[in-house]
Amino acid sequence: MMKKTAVAQKNIVMGLPKGSLQETTFSMMKKAGFTIRADSRSYIPSVDDPEIHARLLRAQEMSRYVELGVLDAGITGYDWIVENGSDVVEVAELLYAKQGLRSVKWVLAVPENSKIKSAADLAGKRIATEAVGMTKRFLQKNKIKAQVEFSWGATEAKVPDLADAIVELTETGASLRAHNLRIVETILVSTTRLIANKAAWKNKWKRDKIEQIAILLKGALAAESTVLLKMNAKLENVAAIMAVLPAMKSPTINHLNTKDWVAIESVVEERIVREIIPQLKKAGAEGIVELGLNKIIP
Amino acid sequence: MMKKTAVAQKNIVMGLPKGSLQETTFSMMKKAGFTIRADSRSYIPSVDDPEIHARLLRAQEMSRYVELGVLDAGITGYDWIVENGSDVVEVAELLYAKQGLRSVKWVLAVPENSKIKSAADLAGKRIATEAVGMTKRFLQKNKIKAQVEFSWGATEAKVPDLADAIVELTETGASLRAHNLRIVETILVSTTRLIANKAAWKNKWKRDKIEQIAILLKGALAAESTVLLKMNAKLENVAAIMAVLPAMKSPTINHLNTKDWVAIESVVEERIVREIIPQLKKAGAEGIVELGLNKIIP
Amino acid sequence: MMKKTAVAQKNIVMGLPKGSLQETTFSMMKKAGFTIRADSRSYIPSVDDPEIHARLLRAQEMSRYVELGVLDAGITGYDWIVENGSDVVEVAELLYAKQGLRSVKWVLAVPENSKIKSAADLAGKRIATEAVGMTKRFLQKNKIKAQVEFSWGATEAKVPDLADAIVELTETGASLRAHNLRIVETILVSTTRLIANKAAWKNKWKRDKIEQIAILLKGALAAESTVLLKMNAKLENVAAIMAVLPAMKSPTINHLNTKDWVAIESVVEERIVREIIPQLKKAGAEGIVELGLNKIIP
Amino acid sequence: MMKKTAVAQKNIVMGLPKGSLQETTFSMMKKAGFTIRADSRSYIPSVDDPEIHARLLRAQEMSRYVELGVLDAGITGYDWIVENGSDVVEVAELLYAKQGLRSVKWVLAVPENSKIKSAADLAGKRIATEAVGMTKRFLQKNKIKAQVEFSWGATEAKVPDLADAIVELTETGASLRAHNLRIVETILVSTTRLIANKAAWKNKWKRDKIEQIAILLKGALAAESTVLLKMNAKLENVAAIMAVLPAMKSPTINHLNTKDWVAIESVVEERIVREIIPQLKKAGAEGIVELGLNKIIP
Amino acid sequence: MMKKTAVAQKNIVMGLPKGSLQETTFSMMKKAGFTIRADSRSYIPSVDDPEIHARLLRAQEMSRYVELGVLDAGITGYDWIVENGSDVVEVAELLYAKQGLRSVKWVLAVPENSKIKSAADLAGKRIATEAVGMTKRFLQKNKIKAQVEFSWGATEAKVPDLADAIVELTETGASLRAHNLRIVETILVSTTRLIANKAAWKNKWKRDKIEQIAILLKGALAAESTVLLKMNAKLENVAAIMAVLPAMKSPTINHLNTKDWVAIESVVEERIVREIIPQLKKAGAEGIVELGLNKIIP
Amino acid sequence: MMKKTAVAQKNIVMGLPKGSLQETTFSMMKKAGFTIRADSRSYIPSVDDPEIHARLLRAQEMSRYVELGVLDAGITGYDWIVENGSDVVEVAELLYAKQGLRSVKWVLAVPENSKIKSAADLAGKRIATEAVGMTKRFLQKNKIKAQVEFSWGATEAKVPDLADAIVELTETGASLRAHNLRIVETILVSTTRLIANKAAWKNKWKRDKIEQIAILLKGALAAESTVLLKMNAKLENVAAIMAVLPAMKSPTINHLNTKDWVAIESVVEERIVREIIPQLKKAGAEGIVELGLNKIIP
Repeated sequence: MMKKTAVAQKNIVMGLPKGSLQETTFSMMKKAGFTIRADSRSYIPSVDDPEIHARLLRAQEMSRYVELGVLDAGITGYDWIVENGSDVVEVAELLYAKQGLRSVKWVLAVPENSKIKSAADLAGKRIATEAVGMTKRFLQKNKIKAQVEFSWGATEAKVPDLADAIVELTETGASLRAHNLRIVETILVSTTRLIANKAAWKNKWKRDKIEQIAILLKGALAAESTVLLKMNAKLENVAAIMAVLPAMKSPTINHLNTKDWVAIESVVEERIVREIIPQLKKAGAEGIVELGLNKIIP
Repeated sequence: MMKKTAVAQKNIVMGLPKGSLQETTFSMMKKAGFTIRADSRSYIPSVDDPEIHARLLRAQEMSRYVELGVLDAGITGYDWIVENGSDVVEVAELLYAKQGLRSVKWVLAVPENSKIKSAADLAGKRIATEAVGMTKRFLQKNKIKAQVEFSWGATEAKVPDLADAIVELTETGASLRAHNLRIVETILVSTTRLIANKAAWKNKWKRDKIEQIAILLKGALAAESTVLLKMNAKLENVAAIMAVLPAMKSPTINHLNTKDWVAIESVVEERIVREIIPQLKKAGAEGIVELGLNKIIP
Repeated sequence: MMKKTAVAQKNIVMGLPKGSLQETTFSMMKKAGFTIRADSRSYIPSVDDPEIHARLLRAQEMSRYVELGVLDAGITGYDWIVENGSDVVEVAELLYAKQGLRSVKWVLAVPENSKIKSAADLAGKRIATEAVGMTKRFLQKNKIKAQVEFSWGATEAKVPDLADAIVELTETGASLRAHNLRIVETILVSTTRLIANKAAWKNKWKRDKIEQIAILLKGALAAESTVLLKMNAKLENVAAIMAVLPAMKSPTINHLNTKDWVAIESVVEERIVREIIPQLKKAGAEGIVELGLNKIIP
Repeated sequence: MMKKTAVAQKNIVMGLPKGSLQETTFSMMKKAGFTIRADSRSYIPSVDDPEIHARLLRAQEMSRYVELGVLDAGITGYDWIVENGSDVVEVAELLYAKQGLRSVKWVLAVPENSKIKSAADLAGKRIATEAVGMTKRFLQKNKIKAQVEFSWGATEAKVPDLADAIVELTETGASLRAHNLRIVETILVSTTRLIANKAAWKNKWKRDKIEQIAILLKGALAAESTVLLKMNAKLENVAAIMAVLPAMKSPTINHLNTKDWVAIESVVEERIVREIIPQLKKAGAEGIVELGLNKIIP
Repeated sequence: MMKKTAVAQKNIVMGLPKGSLQETTFSMMKKAGFTIRADSRSYIPSVDDPEIHARLLRAQEMSRYVELGVLDAGITGYDWIVENGSDVVEVAELLYAKQGLRSVKWVLAVPENSKIKSAADLAGKRIATEAVGMTKRFLQKNKIKAQVEFSWGATEAKVPDLADAIVELTETGASLRAHNLRIVETILVSTTRLIANKAAWKNKWKRDKIEQIAILLKGALAAESTVLLKMNAKLENVAAIMAVLPAMKSPTINHLNTKDWVAIESVVEERIVREIIPQLKKAGAEGIVELGLNKIIP
Repeated sequence: MMKKTAVAQKNIVMGLPKGSLQETTFSMMKKAGFTIRADSRSYIPSVDDPEIHARLLRAQEMSRYVELGVLDAGITGYDWIVENGSDVVEVAELLYAKQGLRSVKWVLAVPENSKIKSAADLAGKRIATEAVGMTKRFLQKNKIKAQVEFSWGATEAKVPDLADAIVELTETGASLRAHNLRIVETILVSTTRLIANKAAWKNKWKRDKIEQIAILLKGALAAESTVLLKMNAKLENVAAIMAVLPAMKSPTINHLNTKDWVAIESVVEERIVREIIPQLKKAGAEGIVELGLNKIIP
């Protein structure tokens, strides 16, 4: 078991998800300020913070080891916390998945031409899934009697031959479409979570450390969709420009050396930039530049 | 479910193992006389025998679907038949694994420096494994109380941090050695098997078809380790040469045009060739040639 | 242009198909007795026969250069000879394609749910294809007026958005199915061909050389689907065994040293072996072995 | 054809170049504010702007489909617009190619030791090229009679064996040099273009949308070669520093808390930074930092 | 030899390290302002500065060619300058290695269970190494007589079979651990260096050019571990915030339009950001954003 | 050092070449009857003969370790035995190289347009090579004074910039041609060799074992270029057919059941098959089949 003696008191052991979430998690941790390097063969990645001891393991098993206390904290999906029924502290919700800044869904799906049109039609049928517990709870809640089988993978290919329906994870729906499957119902919407062991959470030092990681991770995630806009304008145009910039954040305005000119600087959501640039120019903004951000702490 | 209507009566649906056994299985089937082609995306490979409808699925789940009758026959490991507790007909034992013509073992392993020296030392410990059922049965039989956890993969890396011991599959032992693990005990020795559904086995036509596949597969496997040796010799040396050739198979002897010379031909095990060639030459054999075989049916 | 001076009189310049046919062509040439080695960057592969100067070029353009005489001979598809309308000598038909020993088809295909049910429905529509000439001739012959557009690739993805129908090559139909396309009509069935330039064909030495290649290539192709079966039997069972072996080829029978025993040897089609082995055993054959062949010249 | 009914009125269908320009185009679109994600198998990439429906197709065929109106807009090379002779609106010139921010050239090239020294020497010769139309127009303009053949690829390898000269695309000249080819003449200099269908351009909403994309793409391209320089200086050194900074953009100057010190900020071309940094330091600049930009809208 | 005539006087010929340092060196040069592009087959990469002629060669041989004057300058490791005993000018120390911003070490290592506990135990033993000179000098200095053999690679695998000990380069120690080796002693700590030929260094123009490269490279390296922090605060909180920000760099403070609010901007080390953010928030900082830097020139 | 105690007396330790010769060596050993399996990370491959302990190391260093006695035998190139000046027993010459069954050459090469026309022109020049000893001996023998530098690789790219000439290994000459180099002189022709340590050679058991490996390896190599031809013929045609078959090997002739027909069987060189097949048919041979061989022991 965990070599407790070798670990100084001021450390946390933190699980990071191996597989589909790994690349995005490492990139977020990097922007948060923690450089993680994983040897492809090892399950102990190095972290440039001696207070964090990282372990790389599958998202599916993360919450169990956090609950047991072998890990003080971990990053995993809400879906697997539910599936494992783990009793852990949910420290932060982190809105990212394998391919984008969004949630994922576990859906009940059937072949395009199946006669199953709603969950009720599942009675007496066979369902293949990686998430047996979640699927059984769903059936129970809906008072449907059906057979649920654990699938070791390639679940989409199991219908209609080996099963009548599947319960499967989907982020963009592309894989379901490629297999000509139709979504019948969404069973669970899940996002990535930072979780902690209950005992660790009661330890003041560990809790502070985990909360520091939470703040920095959320800052890095927020920065993913935010940019810094800078522009120059005549004083007389400032009001019109301010009307275009979103209200949420008061922009910084500085008088320039050139009489009657100011420099305006504002943090805005990246997705609205393409909309407001024509309006800003119309309102008199000049020399607009956009810069990327590493982190934003509100 | 299985589109029964679309399948002619004179067909069998046969499961082939995806993953570690796939390449060797396809190569054996090819030598047996069945060319199988699998699209990397599809789970329905094509077979050049219209009487065989193939399905590609994980060895872990094969026996379940054979038992259910969704598949008439399948190739999988003995280990997973045991793990699933499936009630199926074992048609033939096929001695090949991922890397060679041999059996594989499920072993109880611990870190080199662990204090666990025998299974009895497991009491109160945590064991990670992909084969939860097999491990629990082993503990029960040995009256040991320990906690068994399903591992989603990378099991070797779970000790000593996340578990005290593992139960894991090994063919050559290389991966265990690379992780500095010590084998405590062998829990199960497993080989590849051709299995059949019980109802299919009672159907005369299907049984004949499955037995035909079994004979050809065993013929292909036997040919893997066997070669044809041909040589010329003077009549007077035939007895000495025959003494060297293994007795199991009576060699073919033909008189040549050249007076007093014969051609000898014998099927022998490939592994003894390197030993008997010097002896054959000493006994008077000339122009020895060795040919590979596709199939050998005794 | 071709450095004629550097080439000895007793040479042929032979084009080999680059791309989808390349691997199978090289493997057939190897079995035919010619080892070809192609540097990935060069278009001049080396051949271990100084009388053959090879050139690697796309099957699409092969027949044009054979017609021009820049190449004396070449291997390409019948489809591209037709498409180019090239006036060349067809020396031999070679029944192999990218994935198997068979022909390929150019088909008119539309999306599954298209209203186009027959070629006649194409009137006024747009067709995308790599084979513009073949498609236009097909339309003309059927008196249909439609627009034909050259497609630079990824033709399957062009319907229904960029075209109403496509004319595309298919070997197994897998790619059409993956794109949810329906075959409306087959426009051309094509096989691989060895072709020669008309002038080269009149040159006695060159014609002999090209015919030698044709014989050896056909011998290698025939050997792909043929094997040598050897078995022992008692004299009294020979008649029964002969009745099982296909009549086309008279088997070789030899008396063995052991009284009343003979050795039987027969060349048979590989695909019937799996059928006749149980019958041979029933008829009294023992120690059946199967050997692969490199070449078979009838 | 285009499922017009499924597409809301406020959409544009935009073609993106598949192949050599794809990676750079996606990266520029990302910096412009549009995240595009392409499944390797699909030709319909997803865009995070519901008003843009993207299609992935070869640059060679883009302008034809824009002219037809199947696409409202597209990104392609000027060369293929000319080759196809397409009647489209050229919205913006975008100075980037596969490997750098520059134009590409179509050149007439021959082997190093060819006797062809100028285009006039082509009379009676054979030219292989992917751009048959462009080459024929070039010959016509120069009153040269030569044979032009369409090449399916690997054009550089076709001389001197299969053709006397080629007309081929080159960005850095590396591939021509590797094949020992000499450039005789440049036939066309081409850059990437954003083009629009004429009818779409008359639709006010579509034109605004396409122009918005043009502005953002040009802003992203401009940012590729521009950076933000920030530095601190004593008031007395400001004039000297301003003399070093390029005049084009008036820098931003702010008084700092520390008496007599100002912060200067200026957007400059990245390529001059390495030259002006020693001069800025000499002029009294301190704490110079350089930041990258996502976008710059003048 | 070097084509001296073809090179204009105002050029330097600069060696860049091929292999393990290549990727990081190219990325640093890019941030320094020089875009380098290397064809995988060529050893002459292109640089977007006509005054720099680059050559790609192994770090092991760099200093020899700089000493000879074939190269005016080069980037290599201190270890190989020592090993070659080259007489060159060390212009700048650049703290980066293959995997991180740090030094590397040449260590004497033995198998975990070797009886060799200190360098003194090497007497009479055999040592395999790529750095024969360095190892012999080390033995001489310590008055140890042992045999040193040049190893062509895979040095870690040579003990204990082919050698008793090795002297090998290590950055993170991972490879040594994977081979179960124990470090006995560190023989040399090495960092990357920019070096110059002595004659080139005396040439005013060349020296200026090399020093310009040194300043820009050091600026790029410094920026790797530094960020720009921006935040807003009430005037009354400025003192508390300033107390948190490191003293080394006086921050920029600007009055905002909103009464009593200022914008604070400071360049800080990236690694302390994760520590000071909670303190800054506590001190009253709002809207903290972090931006990455390309370059920082103190 | 070598753990002598762990190795039973009846073993040999045998070195196998890592790198360019590895794949062909493993394939020859397999045909000889020894299956070798090498983990990509380990230097100790497994052999299915407990009497052989294999070690994988570079051909360059093989002969040194055989001479020292750490290895009893090894496979390497004659070139490296000469370069190292090793005193070993040359047991067998094995005619294979990386790409074919042939010898390789070490050549003196210069750029196409170099003024160096013969070795004599090297006086005062610089030569880069991996084989410093061989090159120096060549210069000494020819009484030429030139500077020889050890090259760490990519030697072809070192001329004309870093050296005036190179001495480099070539098998097909393709790499030299790709670098526009001209061969001035051949310095050494080398083939693969099986070598033994002198003391091991005196040990009766070890010598027998090494000689057994030599015979089997030579048998496997011979089989590479040899095939078995089988055909049927009328008695009256036997003489004509025998005249076509090469004399070296007396063919086997058997009377068939069918009156006046015989079966002829002959081992012939694979490269003459393509020539004699038309002649055999003309002479009356029917049903010719060709079979590959694993091994041929004369």
